[in-house]
Amino acid sequence: MSNPTAAMLVIGDEILSGRTRDANMHHLAGQLTAAGIDLKEVRIISDDAPAIITAVQALSAGFDHVFTSGGIGPTHDDITADCIAAAFDRPIDVREDARALLQAHYDRSGQELNAARLRMARIPDGAVLIDNPVSTAPGFTLRNVHVMAGVPSVFEAMVASVLPSLTGGAPLLSRTLRLVRGEGDIAGPLGAFAAAHPDLSVGSYPFVKDGVYGSNIVVRSSDASKLDSAMDALTALFA
Amino acid sequence: MSNPTAAMLVIGDEILSGRTRDANMHHLAGQLTAAGIDLKEVRIISDDAPAIITAVQALSAGFDHVFTSGGIGPTHDDITADCIAAAFDRPIDVREDARALLQAHYDRSGQELNAARLRMARIPDGAVLIDNPVSTAPGFTLRNVHVMAGVPSVFEAMVASVLPSLTGGAPLLSRTLRLVRGEGDIAGPLGAFAAAHPDLSVGSYPFVKDGVYGSNIVVRSSDASKLDSAMDALTALFA
Repeated sequence: MSNPTAAMLVIGDEILSGRTRDANMHHLAGQLTAAGIDLKEVRIISDDAPAIITAVQALSAGFDHVFTSGGIGPTHDDITADCIAAAFDRPIDVREDARALLQAHYDRSGQELNAARLRMARIPDGAVLIDNPVSTAPGFTLRNVHVMAGVPSVFEAMVASVLPSLTGGAPLLSRTLRLVRGEGDIAGPLGAFAAAHPDLSVGSYPFVKDGVYGSNIVVRSSDASKLDSAMDALTALFA
Repeated sequence: MSNPTAAMLVIGDEILSGRTRDANMHHLAGQLTAAGIDLKEVRIISDDAPAIITAVQALSAGFDHVFTSGGIGPTHDDITADCIAAAFDRPIDVREDARALLQAHYDRSGQELNAARLRMARIPDGAVLIDNPVSTAPGFTLRNVHVMAGVPSVFEAMVASVLPSLTGGAPLLSRTLRLVRGEGDIAGPLGAFAAAHPDLSVGSYPFVKDGVYGSNIVVRSSDASKLDSAMDALTALFA
């Protein structure tokens, strides 16, 4: 049986403008691989309501799980929750349980639960809250879409909250053979090896380091013993 | 007049599996911003022919330019060129000018232009080659799709080859005001500021550093004097 599939939707201009480098994608990719959920696609889009709605609908229909990051804070450019509600034609308003979480949090810190902060309690009808042990304002799951914050520490905490509730498959294991030979040298025998092992994923990732061409051959399988014998064969092939 | 739009398609499993962190996206985002071309979407997909073909068709129809990275080397998992040809229903075969480039390159280095390396001369009919000063094997442009290598040094060289040929708009300038105040504190006045400056892009990017919540307010415009006066007003607002 094949593993469940997933897509990620990163919402916000900061990566598209080159201002920041992604961190959440890399974190989620590693967590899903360990959980036996296959991350098949990532989309990064800007804070644009039609683009968000279209992407959510497409990814929700195409994959078992969708994870979003970004756009659920208190500022004017935080429009993700409203877009998710629109994508699934659900009403959205301040929800009492989310408001109570925020009220308790701001009471503890002596801050005011003002109108902007109250926006973070807007939750689409029928969603399940995702716990945020870092800064309280919750994420939520609606259907197969898990809506999480963009700040990396909060995103990571929410991933940790939601992942144990999902049914994964067999964790995908990977082994790497690093060769200091260009891909053009090894492509022939490597292609034959991949064709002879159709139950394994065999990838070649070229690199250039200090002017020398090399290739990382990555073999993936959820079967450890198959992986071991494949790596023995691969090592012998390029010895 | 608004700037031309662009999308990027990253092809390959290495980012989706969490094995490597993206570098090309960050580079391209910065280069496009400087050139006045608005990067609107990035998609990362695996080495899967139907997924590549569908994404190329969708992005080519939706944006002025599409930049792809990855999958144009000599190994069995390098299927991008064939997928681009399929996406636009063009024949593809080894092209003489591309073969001549490779032949000269491997003659110089005393290596054989074997069958695997010759795959890198497969170019869809009607494409224009993109110069690769790093390792010779060319990229290509077909319609509005610019097909480039995944190895960062090669990708960057190809971006430098192709960008000067594109007509950009006014470079988007950005200025950042860093506030050591949480978004919930500033969201009200910031929203009013954004509403009063509809010709500027005003984004808020929260951060947590050493347990302290802060916000980077990023204002973007291609008009330097508008940007200056907006930053003066913004600084006064939060002084």
